[in-house]
Amino acid sequence: MSPANVAAAKASLSIRLLDRHTTMSDGSRRYLPINLREKLERFHDHWSPRVIAQMNDYQFKLARIQGEFVWHSHADTDEVFIVVDGEMAIEFRDGCVELKTGELFVVPKGVEHKPRAHSECRIMLVEPYGVVNTGGQGGALTAPNDVWV
Amino acid sequence: MSPANVAAAKASLSIRLLDRHTTMSDGSRRYLPINLREKLERFHDHWSPRVIAQMNDYQFKLARIQGEFVWHSHADTDEVFIVVDGEMAIEFRDGCVELKTGELFVVPKGVEHKPRAHSECRIMLVEPYGVVNTGGQGGALTAPNDVWV
Repeated sequence: MSPANVAAAKASLSIRLLDRHTTMSDGSRRYLPINLREKLERFHDHWSPRVIAQMNDYQFKLARIQGEFVWHSHADTDEVFIVVDGEMAIEFRDGCVELKTGELFVVPKGVEHKPRAHSECRIMLVEPYGVVNTGGQGGALTAPNDVWV
Repeated sequence: MSPANVAAAKASLSIRLLDRHTTMSDGSRRYLPINLREKLERFHDHWSPRVIAQMNDYQFKLARIQGEFVWHSHADTDEVFIVVDGEMAIEFRDGCVELKTGELFVVPKGVEHKPRAHSECRIMLVEPYGVVNTGGQGGALTAPNDVWV
């Protein structure tokens, strides 16, 4: 992403933050938190991350996953998986990690991995703005980027 | 932090990730997830964040908080609060946000804020490596940095 696009993304973020409040009778603002479970109820397709927040150039995304994803890697960045509800696994070429509700894992940059979930699992991802879900792999499961919910 | 220190921090991170596995009888590795609640049981002091993971130059920290923190801001970075268990509020000069379990808020960079919790609340923070908990404010509640749990 170009510096101009990063700047635009940040301006957009500021607007979102300022929009999310109500004004009380005394003139003070009550800002609105982002509720992970409420956001997850707003979509039901699998392997299609939705952005819920941005911190500097990093985005927090929610996704519902079920079945097997594709082998892929992200050449330039680590990627964080946090399980909000359910169970999942991430396969690596030399093993795997199993994650359940309230657990987190950092996939190091450049490491090939394949997420999977036997039953539907709801997760939060943290990664830099612009990361494509299938890395350099492409294919049918490649999701549109920067879709907010 | 100097580039050399960032490089050292990343090398240290790689070692941590590689250390956290068991080897199965077939030679494959079973990597170990980071369980937020288990990590939180390992310390009990308030306002003293512990690092549990690092993604690129960003750290994920857990903290127990109770009472009122100090007014402060972070001039160079946004800061993410996620409530793992409990209720908290973040005061701003023009209002506040109330957060409960499973809710997230991004405090924009440069914005003065004061976290507080009536009863003990357990939270996860996400921010760049090296951010001091009291920002430029200092004082008795300033915690040591980069303490892992």
